[in-house]
Amino acid sequence: MHKLSELQTLINDYLAAHLAVDVDQPQLQAAMAYSLLAGGKRLRPALTLGVAELLGQELTPAVVKAACAVELLHTYSLIHDDLPAMDNDELRRGVPTNHKKFGAGMATLAGDGLLTLAFTWLTENELPLTTQVQLVKSLARAAGPAGMVAGQAKDIEGEKEELTLGQLQTVHAQKTGALLAYAVVAGGMIAQATPQVIGDLFAFGKAYGLAFQIQDDLLDVTATSAEVGKEVHRDAAAHKNTYPGLLGLAGAQASLAQALTTARQARDALGAQLAVQPQILDEFLAYFER
Amino acid sequence: MHKLSELQTLINDYLAAHLAVDVDQPQLQAAMAYSLLAGGKRLRPALTLGVAELLGQELTPAVVKAACAVELLHTYSLIHDDLPAMDNDELRRGVPTNHKKFGAGMATLAGDGLLTLAFTWLTENELPLTTQVQLVKSLARAAGPAGMVAGQAKDIEGEKEELTLGQLQTVHAQKTGALLAYAVVAGGMIAQATPQVIGDLFAFGKAYGLAFQIQDDLLDVTATSAEVGKEVHRDAAAHKNTYPGLLGLAGAQASLAQALTTARQARDALGAQLAVQPQILDEFLAYFER
Repeated sequence: MHKLSELQTLINDYLAAHLAVDVDQPQLQAAMAYSLLAGGKRLRPALTLGVAELLGQELTPAVVKAACAVELLHTYSLIHDDLPAMDNDELRRGVPTNHKKFGAGMATLAGDGLLTLAFTWLTENELPLTTQVQLVKSLARAAGPAGMVAGQAKDIEGEKEELTLGQLQTVHAQKTGALLAYAVVAGGMIAQATPQVIGDLFAFGKAYGLAFQIQDDLLDVTATSAEVGKEVHRDAAAHKNTYPGLLGLAGAQASLAQALTTARQARDALGAQLAVQPQILDEFLAYFER
Repeated sequence: MHKLSELQTLINDYLAAHLAVDVDQPQLQAAMAYSLLAGGKRLRPALTLGVAELLGQELTPAVVKAACAVELLHTYSLIHDDLPAMDNDELRRGVPTNHKKFGAGMATLAGDGLLTLAFTWLTENELPLTTQVQLVKSLARAAGPAGMVAGQAKDIEGEKEELTLGQLQTVHAQKTGALLAYAVVAGGMIAQATPQVIGDLFAFGKAYGLAFQIQDDLLDVTATSAEVGKEVHRDAAAHKNTYPGLLGLAGAQASLAQALTTARQARDALGAQLAVQPQILDEFLAYFER
């Protein structure tokens, strides 16, 4: 059983070795690699691999390839989100954003390329056809115009109005939660888990995703730019709807604690069904305790 | 057997009825619908349906849905291609481009949404799993960073240098040809055609795609803006590499004729294998004789 840090190494090695073969133009390849290989915690593919292994799945090259697709997709979303026409951010993971380095045209294409390549990696592997189709369906739903892209649209439209807590939860669930929940459930799909296990994985992923977004909102208020590697205090300046903005700092922290409690309950429900304890999930939860 | 005009009606009706259910945010939905339902010849999904029917496939709702995925993808490529950071076009199909109407941020998201939704439509249908996976693999390859996105990257990078004819052919094959060839081959995949038929379909699609791009280059030189519904004489102004730019008007016209001859040979090879004559392909070739 791999630890989180070992999964991260596995993912970083895979991404570094395999991106170049699927990209044809030098500048495009440089722009895609720049953001994909800029570090990052690799939480999403690590969730997929950690869950798959927890459920008894061997981490073959095919499994690693399929798991890494979500990192391609996540990276595209960051590149497009940072564009001048979107959040207009200049710093990401401590370095200039993709469009600051390659221009907005090439950054748009780098995002388009990563998004499309994600579906190649989900299907050009040796997994069973049923698993491949389940993954494509789930990722496209999570990332598409009723998922992540809808969340992004609500986010930029929401800047014009004040959302209720319920509306904000929906935006967050689509913008961040859907892809994290996908990552968790994908591990179950790859391991061909029972519907009951998939249900518990989804509950964990959903709560984990909510906690993640509240944490992200909180860090924008409380952290320094050096700590998080991107510009901070941007949300308030952009009139973004956030948990601290809506509930205050203490209220947002209470919401984070609540989401983590829900995630732990789902972890326990899962543990009750398995022969081994889901310690890898504790490692993911520990991300919130640094 | 449907005529091209009947296929176009079938496609338009399907798109108008089914886009809304898969999109969650009103402005995003409006932006996606604006470009998707702005008309257009629907050549790509019509090629898929025409070929599938030619090979004996009934045009069930599942087949129409899968065929229309390529139109979602094609529309995304137009929206992103028109963006200020890319070609900065103001007119498309006779109306303002997506970003002129909705802003560059929402236009970027509309494109992202259409691209992702294409993969939903390829897999959320009743086709056999093997067909779904073949379609996802082929579309992602044709549209991805070794296909259409690579062609776009070479196109904007190529503005800085003069390409040879061979390089220009590669750019065109990736930028336009790959998706048209996909559309033709997809019809064969849906109809579960033999490898030999798929081979002839690919040869037809490749030559057809080349002819299409040469025609597009020629129209930018010879047509008026009213005739083509978009700005013309843009290529020379942007120092784009084009067939007329490289070979002159007569040379480009000769290349177009050559590509059409190759396409007709592939049509004949296909006809020799089938019980019925591929008249629908003649309708697609007639597009070049207006």
